[in-house]
Amino acid sequence: MKKVAIGQAGGPTAVVNSTLIGFVDSVKDSCSITFVENGYEGLVNGSFINGDTEMLDWVQGNKQVPGACLGSGRFPFTDTDIKKAITNLRQNGIHTLAFIGGNGTMEALNKLRLEARKLGVDLQVIGIPKTVDNDIGCIDHAPGFGSAARYIAQTTKDTSRDLDAMKNFEQIRIIETMGRNGGWLAAASGLFKEYSEEGPHFIAIPEKPLDKKELLHAVRKAIQSFGYAVVVVSEGVQWVKGSQVEIDQVYGRPILGGISKEIEGFLKKKLNLMTRSELLGINQRSYSVGASCVDQEEAYVVGVKAGEWIKEGLSGCMVSIQRGTSFSYSIDIKPVELEKVIRAGERPMPLEFIQNFDAYYEWLLPLVGNGAPSYPPLLQSRFANVKR
Amino acid sequence: MKKVAIGQAGGPTAVVNSTLIGFVDSVKDSCSITFVENGYEGLVNGSFINGDTEMLDWVQGNKQVPGACLGSGRFPFTDTDIKKAITNLRQNGIHTLAFIGGNGTMEALNKLRLEARKLGVDLQVIGIPKTVDNDIGCIDHAPGFGSAARYIAQTTKDTSRDLDAMKNFEQIRIIETMGRNGGWLAAASGLFKEYSEEGPHFIAIPEKPLDKKELLHAVRKAIQSFGYAVVVVSEGVQWVKGSQVEIDQVYGRPILGGISKEIEGFLKKKLNLMTRSELLGINQRSYSVGASCVDQEEAYVVGVKAGEWIKEGLSGCMVSIQRGTSFSYSIDIKPVELEKVIRAGERPMPLEFIQNFDAYYEWLLPLVGNGAPSYPPLLQSRFANVKR
Repeated sequence: MKKVAIGQAGGPTAVVNSTLIGFVDSVKDSCSITFVENGYEGLVNGSFINGDTEMLDWVQGNKQVPGACLGSGRFPFTDTDIKKAITNLRQNGIHTLAFIGGNGTMEALNKLRLEARKLGVDLQVIGIPKTVDNDIGCIDHAPGFGSAARYIAQTTKDTSRDLDAMKNFEQIRIIETMGRNGGWLAAASGLFKEYSEEGPHFIAIPEKPLDKKELLHAVRKAIQSFGYAVVVVSEGVQWVKGSQVEIDQVYGRPILGGISKEIEGFLKKKLNLMTRSELLGINQRSYSVGASCVDQEEAYVVGVKAGEWIKEGLSGCMVSIQRGTSFSYSIDIKPVELEKVIRAGERPMPLEFIQNFDAYYEWLLPLVGNGAPSYPPLLQSRFANVKR
Repeated sequence: MKKVAIGQAGGPTAVVNSTLIGFVDSVKDSCSITFVENGYEGLVNGSFINGDTEMLDWVQGNKQVPGACLGSGRFPFTDTDIKKAITNLRQNGIHTLAFIGGNGTMEALNKLRLEARKLGVDLQVIGIPKTVDNDIGCIDHAPGFGSAARYIAQTTKDTSRDLDAMKNFEQIRIIETMGRNGGWLAAASGLFKEYSEEGPHFIAIPEKPLDKKELLHAVRKAIQSFGYAVVVVSEGVQWVKGSQVEIDQVYGRPILGGISKEIEGFLKKKLNLMTRSELLGINQRSYSVGASCVDQEEAYVVGVKAGEWIKEGLSGCMVSIQRGTSFSYSIDIKPVELEKVIRAGERPMPLEFIQNFDAYYEWLLPLVGNGAPSYPPLLQSRFANVKR
């Protein structure tokens, strides 16, 4: 029986356990499964868990559970570590490795593949995409992204209703989203906007340096027109002639965060209004309630596909979601070479979406599942003639 | 036809529009309704909206919408303002006023009632409770609280799963909740905890000054046992021999926030581990997805009851929810004098709950609706013998 190992790496999502379960369901009858604990760290330390019936049952119980049930984490995967990982796999008789992760994981898998070849070790590798940031190349979108986008769109809509009610007390709210160097998540904040009175009234994405004048103009206009302003900003945004704001650096990789606080300071100084910034936090990637049903399903399917391809002998590739060409939403699942994914690098939003958020929303809506919520217009637009 | 006015005041909740709609449904056939815009400010400025069919339809469309659809806000309600409000009501032929709000609203209504009496003006007033903080006295619990408690309990559970997966990278997460001077919301964070490995591993509430040694001991123990620690802290918490942390002061009332950042600094210094704090933000009171169905229904019912009592001629009272005495969860809705509510003041958690969170959770569970989510145990407890 073929012995395959599977692990999860990087920041979890609300649906990454679905992918794991899809994989397990696909291979459990024809392969022996070994689970890798805590991502690359488990590969290096040989933290392997045998997929006996009890373990498979436990994994399958995690379908609706956020986080990465095997443990994922971040781990500096050095060249020495790669050699150790290959030794550990070989000593356990494992010649097939699947990993669920983002760009870093695809790179790690490719390094493992090349190093194994150099060492004359037979190693089949397959990557399965996962990221809330949607910054993996050669793919229409990544599992995990749709749920995070839905959370951010709903949060922005609900926050707007809250702030509209509180506008005699608080006029400006700045919401900072995840997304690293891509604006996909921040831009998703406007997906459920139905009326110009609703927020977001301004969205800042990393693909376009933030211009103070433009920001100020948009916020002033929103306040004049609606009495309040909701600004959404991606953690990766930088001011024109500025740089990204970092909370910390770990393993040489910056942890972004804090641009909303800078915007708060700037707007307070310019407008002297009650202004508050807020970082949306872990719920963006882990809140289980209201996750996208489409995302949940697609996450499962990419796992299943990885299992099938492993049985067919594919190696050195990532499972990719491509959008179908039919009028209604559909996807095709296709293999794409790891090296191609790596060469593509971090994927920013394409220009056609940056220049036209409506085109982006048309593309995005099917991914978030259950369509868009519909609220009545705000009082101020419904009864525009009421004195204020 | 009796002419009644209704308004909303203070921070919105996910269900405060249900209360408004309950009220409207209850009185619309026998009274003429006037809506007050933006809370007390609307009373003072005479921002009244006539409840014609179109307006009633619009209000009723807001049942699942968070925020306060009439506008609420905060407004310093001075003695001069009270006189202006009474004049505005009288000039519009309104002798009945219902307001949905918290402790401040009950005080404002009582002042209006007393001032009207002094001026010889006939004014019937009724208060309808609303607060996520659950700090209104003379009541079992307030509408809005159940939904916020559910959001916080689910967030803490989901964040724990996320952090457990990331523990080789991030070991400590501090979550700061709303709640003002009461610990009801922060303590709710443990409601869905099923295993000792899951967070929260430590909860700090304002009713009990935070002891550094105790906090450090709990966090150390969680890290030793589980590899990570989730701390939940209410915005109103102060250190032993410390004071509350304020973001700002508006209208002489402090806006609390920032104690989690102080805890982050303290733990970082003591433990030198990756530690991050996060303020949960507006979603606590406004996220519409996953609001408690029980809370939603009760919010509606207190509105209905207020309408009925207005028709019966009651005045000077607040609608209160009392818990039924039967074995299964039930409520009785009873009037309680405004003056009694005001005398009771801000309600902290009772000692029996502070000393025994399990007793609190037994009391709390029926309010959050839909029972508790059930997740499988964490990998580390499921396979405790795996080397790490």
